[in-house]
Amino acid sequence: MLNRLLKTSILPLLIYWLLGGACFAELRGTGDLGVVIERERGSVLIIETSTRSILGRVGKLGDLSHASVVFSRDQRYAYVFARDGGLSKIDLLQNKLVRRIEQAGNSIGGAISQDGRFIAVANYQPGGVRIFTSEALELMADIPAVYGDEQRSRVVGLVDAPGRQFVYSLFDAGEIWLLDMQDPSRIEIQKFTGIGRQPYDALLTPGGRYYLAGLFGETGLALLDLWHPEAGVKRILPDYGRHDEKLPVYKMPHLEGWAVAGNLAFVPAVGRHEVLVIDTRQWRLVKSIPVAGQPVFVMARPDGRQIWVNFAFPDNQQVQVIDAEDLTVGRTLQPGKGVLHMEFTPRGEEVWISVRDDNQILVYDTRSFQEMARLPAVTPSGIFFTARAAKTGL
Amino acid sequence: MLNRLLKTSILPLLIYWLLGGACFAELRGTGDLGVVIERERGSVLIIETSTRSILGRVGKLGDLSHASVVFSRDQRYAYVFARDGGLSKIDLLQNKLVRRIEQAGNSIGGAISQDGRFIAVANYQPGGVRIFTSEALELMADIPAVYGDEQRSRVVGLVDAPGRQFVYSLFDAGEIWLLDMQDPSRIEIQKFTGIGRQPYDALLTPGGRYYLAGLFGETGLALLDLWHPEAGVKRILPDYGRHDEKLPVYKMPHLEGWAVAGNLAFVPAVGRHEVLVIDTRQWRLVKSIPVAGQPVFVMARPDGRQIWVNFAFPDNQQVQVIDAEDLTVGRTLQPGKGVLHMEFTPRGEEVWISVRDDNQILVYDTRSFQEMARLPAVTPSGIFFTARAAKTGL
Repeated sequence: MLNRLLKTSILPLLIYWLLGGACFAELRGTGDLGVVIERERGSVLIIETSTRSILGRVGKLGDLSHASVVFSRDQRYAYVFARDGGLSKIDLLQNKLVRRIEQAGNSIGGAISQDGRFIAVANYQPGGVRIFTSEALELMADIPAVYGDEQRSRVVGLVDAPGRQFVYSLFDAGEIWLLDMQDPSRIEIQKFTGIGRQPYDALLTPGGRYYLAGLFGETGLALLDLWHPEAGVKRILPDYGRHDEKLPVYKMPHLEGWAVAGNLAFVPAVGRHEVLVIDTRQWRLVKSIPVAGQPVFVMARPDGRQIWVNFAFPDNQQVQVIDAEDLTVGRTLQPGKGVLHMEFTPRGEEVWISVRDDNQILVYDTRSFQEMARLPAVTPSGIFFTARAAKTGL
Repeated sequence: MLNRLLKTSILPLLIYWLLGGACFAELRGTGDLGVVIERERGSVLIIETSTRSILGRVGKLGDLSHASVVFSRDQRYAYVFARDGGLSKIDLLQNKLVRRIEQAGNSIGGAISQDGRFIAVANYQPGGVRIFTSEALELMADIPAVYGDEQRSRVVGLVDAPGRQFVYSLFDAGEIWLLDMQDPSRIEIQKFTGIGRQPYDALLTPGGRYYLAGLFGETGLALLDLWHPEAGVKRILPDYGRHDEKLPVYKMPHLEGWAVAGNLAFVPAVGRHEVLVIDTRQWRLVKSIPVAGQPVFVMARPDGRQIWVNFAFPDNQQVQVIDAEDLTVGRTLQPGKGVLHMEFTPRGEEVWISVRDDNQILVYDTRSFQEMARLPAVTPSGIFFTARAAKTGL
């Protein structure tokens, strides 16, 4: 009797196991998924935007201050770049850490190649870029950022670009490197030297034509036109970053936080309560829009009709919405204490906002400005949706 | 003994069944999926672009001439609009038809609302728009296209627009209707009359600001600026569509086949071997580019660097690639007999081309123009990738 019971109850279980992990996870699409960084816990929340819910949490991801995320081209996996050099691959469908490697001592973000096959990481220590297969996180190339007398530079502002390329800047060397991966077995590197002192961050314009690096060591920005790399790096907006030395700069604004809508770029001024409007055809300043604090992220709603701005301390309880046509602030919202990041749903009908000190994520309708949901999160910072997989330079 | 054998073998099977359909389908992301219309078979192929393979086929979808497809916001389901009024919901993960309704006698495409909750279908017979829930395909609104003396017009050029709106044109009435679904229980309709004779197709510019309708009954295009509907519909490009009456127009070019890259729109000339380049700031003709035949689809690679063009009979064995900067044809490809449609992978590294008479789909690398794969398909026409779920107006 016992024997029979065992057989009839263990066999089904065995088969259940043999059917594999797939059965434990719900079969679902991945186009409406995303992750939210919980910085202090070293974890991420997996969320979905269709019914605004939290699906799970994955922890033990290391130091997630200034963490960023890219997604596999099938939008099933998230790659999390930690500050401590950790690179983690997370399965969004099974709420689990697939693999974590400590690929460097200190790193600052990364990118996924246009074809989704490679993950590149920008490292401070040792200075350089390491490239891994997206499938297994196996090292496939190590490219030290060597300059001058065999010195190693910290690497910043790493982005993917069309034509299976990566672009990044060497903070200590003042260089921009363009990595051509069209033939992964024969990576070609083009180096642009003397581009300006201490490039600290960079962005690629939507579509992927222009790479812009912000300079910490001087004013202005370095511009590389990827349609014409042979023309070299130019300096634009010579006054960008100039600020009153008596005004403290609470936070160097992120360049990924630039918004480009039509021919206009909306750019956080450094150390001033202003969003700068720049015509991208001549790279000339069109207007300065007064705002509620020092802007950190300046983000365009996907249709380009609105520009949403958050601020550095002590004004970081607010979010302002700029009308992209009037170039004035049309709305001020008060999501709560410590607004750190914003992410629009792919077609822009809603925006998710992380409010760190309130341990909450707020979701707003971007047309009515009505609050649609509040979700609990432990000190949330960056929010990243899977639709990024289909975009260049994010 | 038999008794025991039955118990041990049936129980596991029972449990296997109870675990449900999820176990029969592979757990996978949906960001790299797509469908290809097989017109004559009335079926679609489900494909994935990461390893360029066919995952399955779903049939019995009705008359798929001029069929089009939209995707659920989670990118799991494809909605196929058939010519015979059929609307089908396909589960891409389980290769199966979830539901098919015959919602009208004759229809011409549709759209999914910005928030993914509603599917709108443009009907010829009975003339009007019907709106269904995307979840269950339940009718939630029926909006007859009534004009004049209680006449019903055929509806064309239906697109979704930001702000949970739909826009479409009334072929027989010469009107454009703007449907506001912000509050789905109280749909508001704004009608623009006298917009021109016989609008036959339309497009929304990327980002969703401008709705343009082509006119069959006269030259020029009707333009509605959705940032300023109060300004009404304007007529632009007064010569568009003017052609030599002695030259047969083999096919009215699709307006969804317009490419907008930066400030330029690349537009198929009607009945002429030309692609027109239009400055979208003043809606003025910049240049006519001579091409190999009457252009049908004129599509921009996602980064805007290249414009790919296919042609009407008898030149439909070719594809030409226009350089978006030089505004000249840089490359002519010969994919095979009956090139009907093209779709770029989300970040543009490859393009899929349907070659009807050769019963094949060809995949090219868009940088090297190398052929990467050939896949069998029965009289393939439209190709649609799930990344469309994150885009407006497609």
